[in-house]
Amino acid sequence: MSISLGIIGAGRIGRVHASALTARVPGAKLLAIADVFADSARAAARDFSIPDYTADPGELINSGALDAVVICSSTDTHVRFIREAAAAGKHIFCEKPIDQDLAAIDRALAAVADAGVQLQIGFNRRFDANHLRLKRAIEAGEIGVPHTLTIISRDPAPPPLDYIKVSGGLMMDMMIHDFDMCRYLLGEVSEIFAMADCLVDPAIGAAGDIDTAKVLLRFENGALGTIENSRQTVYGYDQRVEVFGSGGAASSANVYPDQVTISSAESLRRSLPLHFFLERYYESYVTEMRLFVEALAQDKAVPVTGEDGRVPVLMALAGMRSLCERRPVKLAEVAAGA
Amino acid sequence: MSISLGIIGAGRIGRVHASALTARVPGAKLLAIADVFADSARAAARDFSIPDYTADPGELINSGALDAVVICSSTDTHVRFIREAAAAGKHIFCEKPIDQDLAAIDRALAAVADAGVQLQIGFNRRFDANHLRLKRAIEAGEIGVPHTLTIISRDPAPPPLDYIKVSGGLMMDMMIHDFDMCRYLLGEVSEIFAMADCLVDPAIGAAGDIDTAKVLLRFENGALGTIENSRQTVYGYDQRVEVFGSGGAASSANVYPDQVTISSAESLRRSLPLHFFLERYYESYVTEMRLFVEALAQDKAVPVTGEDGRVPVLMALAGMRSLCERRPVKLAEVAAGA
Amino acid sequence: MSISLGIIGAGRIGRVHASALTARVPGAKLLAIADVFADSARAAARDFSIPDYTADPGELINSGALDAVVICSSTDTHVRFIREAAAAGKHIFCEKPIDQDLAAIDRALAAVADAGVQLQIGFNRRFDANHLRLKRAIEAGEIGVPHTLTIISRDPAPPPLDYIKVSGGLMMDMMIHDFDMCRYLLGEVSEIFAMADCLVDPAIGAAGDIDTAKVLLRFENGALGTIENSRQTVYGYDQRVEVFGSGGAASSANVYPDQVTISSAESLRRSLPLHFFLERYYESYVTEMRLFVEALAQDKAVPVTGEDGRVPVLMALAGMRSLCERRPVKLAEVAAGA
Amino acid sequence: MSISLGIIGAGRIGRVHASALTARVPGAKLLAIADVFADSARAAARDFSIPDYTADPGELINSGALDAVVICSSTDTHVRFIREAAAAGKHIFCEKPIDQDLAAIDRALAAVADAGVQLQIGFNRRFDANHLRLKRAIEAGEIGVPHTLTIISRDPAPPPLDYIKVSGGLMMDMMIHDFDMCRYLLGEVSEIFAMADCLVDPAIGAAGDIDTAKVLLRFENGALGTIENSRQTVYGYDQRVEVFGSGGAASSANVYPDQVTISSAESLRRSLPLHFFLERYYESYVTEMRLFVEALAQDKAVPVTGEDGRVPVLMALAGMRSLCERRPVKLAEVAAGA
Repeated sequence: MSISLGIIGAGRIGRVHASALTARVPGAKLLAIADVFADSARAAARDFSIPDYTADPGELINSGALDAVVICSSTDTHVRFIREAAAAGKHIFCEKPIDQDLAAIDRALAAVADAGVQLQIGFNRRFDANHLRLKRAIEAGEIGVPHTLTIISRDPAPPPLDYIKVSGGLMMDMMIHDFDMCRYLLGEVSEIFAMADCLVDPAIGAAGDIDTAKVLLRFENGALGTIENSRQTVYGYDQRVEVFGSGGAASSANVYPDQVTISSAESLRRSLPLHFFLERYYESYVTEMRLFVEALAQDKAVPVTGEDGRVPVLMALAGMRSLCERRPVKLAEVAAGA
Repeated sequence: MSISLGIIGAGRIGRVHASALTARVPGAKLLAIADVFADSARAAARDFSIPDYTADPGELINSGALDAVVICSSTDTHVRFIREAAAAGKHIFCEKPIDQDLAAIDRALAAVADAGVQLQIGFNRRFDANHLRLKRAIEAGEIGVPHTLTIISRDPAPPPLDYIKVSGGLMMDMMIHDFDMCRYLLGEVSEIFAMADCLVDPAIGAAGDIDTAKVLLRFENGALGTIENSRQTVYGYDQRVEVFGSGGAASSANVYPDQVTISSAESLRRSLPLHFFLERYYESYVTEMRLFVEALAQDKAVPVTGEDGRVPVLMALAGMRSLCERRPVKLAEVAAGA
Repeated sequence: MSISLGIIGAGRIGRVHASALTARVPGAKLLAIADVFADSARAAARDFSIPDYTADPGELINSGALDAVVICSSTDTHVRFIREAAAAGKHIFCEKPIDQDLAAIDRALAAVADAGVQLQIGFNRRFDANHLRLKRAIEAGEIGVPHTLTIISRDPAPPPLDYIKVSGGLMMDMMIHDFDMCRYLLGEVSEIFAMADCLVDPAIGAAGDIDTAKVLLRFENGALGTIENSRQTVYGYDQRVEVFGSGGAASSANVYPDQVTISSAESLRRSLPLHFFLERYYESYVTEMRLFVEALAQDKAVPVTGEDGRVPVLMALAGMRSLCERRPVKLAEVAAGA
Repeated sequence: MSISLGIIGAGRIGRVHASALTARVPGAKLLAIADVFADSARAAARDFSIPDYTADPGELINSGALDAVVICSSTDTHVRFIREAAAAGKHIFCEKPIDQDLAAIDRALAAVADAGVQLQIGFNRRFDANHLRLKRAIEAGEIGVPHTLTIISRDPAPPPLDYIKVSGGLMMDMMIHDFDMCRYLLGEVSEIFAMADCLVDPAIGAAGDIDTAKVLLRFENGALGTIENSRQTVYGYDQRVEVFGSGGAASSANVYPDQVTISSAESLRRSLPLHFFLERYYESYVTEMRLFVEALAQDKAVPVTGEDGRVPVLMALAGMRSLCERRPVKLAEVAAGA
């Protein structure tokens, strides 16, 4: 049984999903793509041989030919499209974050629940080979009871300032992946404390954001975690995770384009790691889409739920409040206040 | 401009090329597949959405709709299909080795030359990211003048005995890739000395073959090389190359499914390397096919020529003679005697 | 010119210094060792061929034959011996921490200043080859302006509970080395926030201490740091430091007894890291003692001063207050309150 | 019980043993050093606090105060001093090679046998932590039945031409360590084939030697081996060994002065390996001397015997004959012809 899908949003991430759905996902039929910029939709339709395109997302959402929609448009449109798609009885894949506002997220999740459709959130990193291996190590007891988690997550370069201004800030836009990773690997977090600054580019600070952050977390199971984010890394994308426990540790290293060492009179050197998320995490995008299509085809639960999309936003809000109030913040405080 | 292709041979390697040509090679149109076992052809046509299939390779070769044929049938049919395809004016991609007999190879190459078509040989490993990096290091002078080459090339497990019996032996079937790598990286070899034995499985010896070999080579430029082959490696596919020169060294390591280290009370350990050639070298199959199609579309020379297919066979013959006569053998001797 | 020394304290660390001073430190003459347990002093004198031993530290301190004393006795005796040695005009090497009380430390430092003798504190890790390399990378600008520091520092197993009870706690006893490393690499810290728990052994908690801690620090220069400590690591001593900056990163890995990888059908594995501080840091003990003796012989300043001994205690106190009051604590608060 | 020793030869390697015997070998008393250059003997005596020195090796050999002599003089004096020391009833440690001539070696070994003294040969690399780990892996069955051995052994820079002229050539002087390693790890070799050239410096060729060599060996147990030697390596001392077998592989990597990786915008790089044998193998010199002294003190057999000193010379002669006659040479041929 095959699943017919349409994509809303023909930007960078929309094209990633289009490339996966057309060439790498068994059982998927990508029938349409929508973008309010008609040229973008047309270009994507041509490049990926998608039969139909439109400048009207609503038209796509209400197409009788589709089983599911993949929402890749800007964050501020997510809740609206989720609600419309749910109302149209479509299953939904939505990029992260659902929204920057908890109440809006709750409205979207309620619409999904009411409609009885499935909603998968785009936390693709869960399906990276390294993170899957860490998860398996934990679940198989290879490291005993987890005591600490250390996440290093550094981007090669900051996004444009215009993007930063609407991004919701580093914690909502970038660290949200790491918040998800915390939950994926060790379960729920109870308390967050953050220190951060603008060390890379003063213009980011002028735009009200930070570019370097260290966050300390306490998990409900007693484990302690740290996350480090930087918006700029001269050697490229730095993505490493270590879980340490009573029975050992599981640590991931970066991924490289080759495994060659050059030994010269000056040093032993190797190539820089895969440059950014498209290179490093492409296979995880393919996998998340395979699992989404497979879940729909087999009527199983999707692997990343609406709740999985909601909690990291809560964590980002707690982190931002910690920064603002210079104290540790419990998730329960933020949840209660929302 | 697009290139229309047909594949002859719907076995394992034929399916690899089919998967690449249908999903990963821009400008390629895979229109037909032929296999004398009609069921295999039909299954491949279905699995890869190939419009046409046939049990008659001749029918495919002579189809007016095709620009090129990809020969993935058993080695003993290569020369015949090359000659027929050349006569039909088709460009040709042929798996290695062209043949185990130099005179037969020469007949095939003559037919190709007469017809003025292009012939690319399937030495895919040249297009592996690690080998490309080694090649670039040499060409860019990163290691100075090359003095030595060391190739470790070990398969996870021997092929079935029935295959070994018709394979032409380890040097013709397995080490031929390493002979090609020698030429690709350091140029022509002048002399070969081999020691080998049957250490893995006596049945391989009973079938007249060896399963473990160490070969010493002298290059025309004065460099010295060694190749090690084993048919059985309990930890999987072991593929490493090191070039050492006056200015340094370039060494490749194996490729792994993940970059995770598990530290326990007993050891620090990581996963086994990618298991075999389909996992380790899949991207190189895609790349060689891209370059083939691109060369045809742009009317450029293909990157691996008929001569590149011929010389490694000569090297295998020299290696086998060395084993037999227990002395170093010059390639010129074998070339002259052929 | 040679320097005559006596050691106070013939326990584990006293013997480490004895072994270094007798065999590895040019210009050092180890003439005497004192321990209130006469048997320990006698055994050390015999094992390291030290001419003299005594059960009376005061006798050693006031010996006219000695230029310097090396204080390796229990922490609660440090200040007393420092003051006596200073009064006797002896140069002093003292193990860390000087004391757990800032006022007591200040009295000791005042005595040293009044006497005009030199005092070196035993922060040996500064002289480890890896840490020296990190320091050099920072000073040479190899990583640009430092933005973050990450220290992982895990012991193989907790000390005996009796020791823990008098140790001053994990931050004073164990993390103090990491506080020193922070200052050594990136300069002064302004603010500390800590989360910690007793995850390894409830008996440690019952003794009023913690066994697992994550600490977040802000440096005066704006950089952010984290330290992780665990009292128990099944794979041995885990000592890694990473400095990340505007121009790159410098990261140290653990040190191993050998560089051998064993590849089997199950995994690729290597030996556990060097087990504990005596194995991992032995050379750094030799180096600190060489530099101490060299400074005295050449009348230069010692490389780790009394102030270097004082500030990490201040940091430990700030860390403990942070734990207690569940908020970030500025060093200035603790310094003012002392 | 302690052992009294004297050293003959106060050059580089004599001083290495002096430093080990005076500071690192329990039970050793280094009482005298002899060198025909009296200044060298005097300097060593001063630097290592050796009570006695002399310009007359015979005087040292016949000293009633000594239990053993350590022969570190030039190779052409080894046999004479061995015979004199044996006649004087002294146990003997002799640097490799015993001699370049098999008949002379046999005379030395006969003298040792007649006198009933012990003779240990200075194949120190056996006691390197990496090689010990490889040996243990083989003996413990961690890699099953060994099938192949690969030794990469490259010096940072050639010795002076004057030394090369009397060295006996690369195989006698440098590869002899690797021949010993072959025997140590996999047992006796039956046949050798060599290819070599002068690729580093034509002056070495003019002096009648080679500077780059690849050697193929067959072991009596059926395994196959290769050794690569180069006299010049711009990145320093390259010493790696891999044993591959039916149950896996054990591979050693180089040893580095630190474990720090520097990541910059250009590359990830680390420091060069330990530069040469004194840095890389110092601990193995200490260990071999400990085992020598321990064997004498406990009246046990020494770990590297006269026969262990003889066979690698035989292998070097076989290798040189192979080079000369351009064919594989059996050790039995050389042994018979000697």
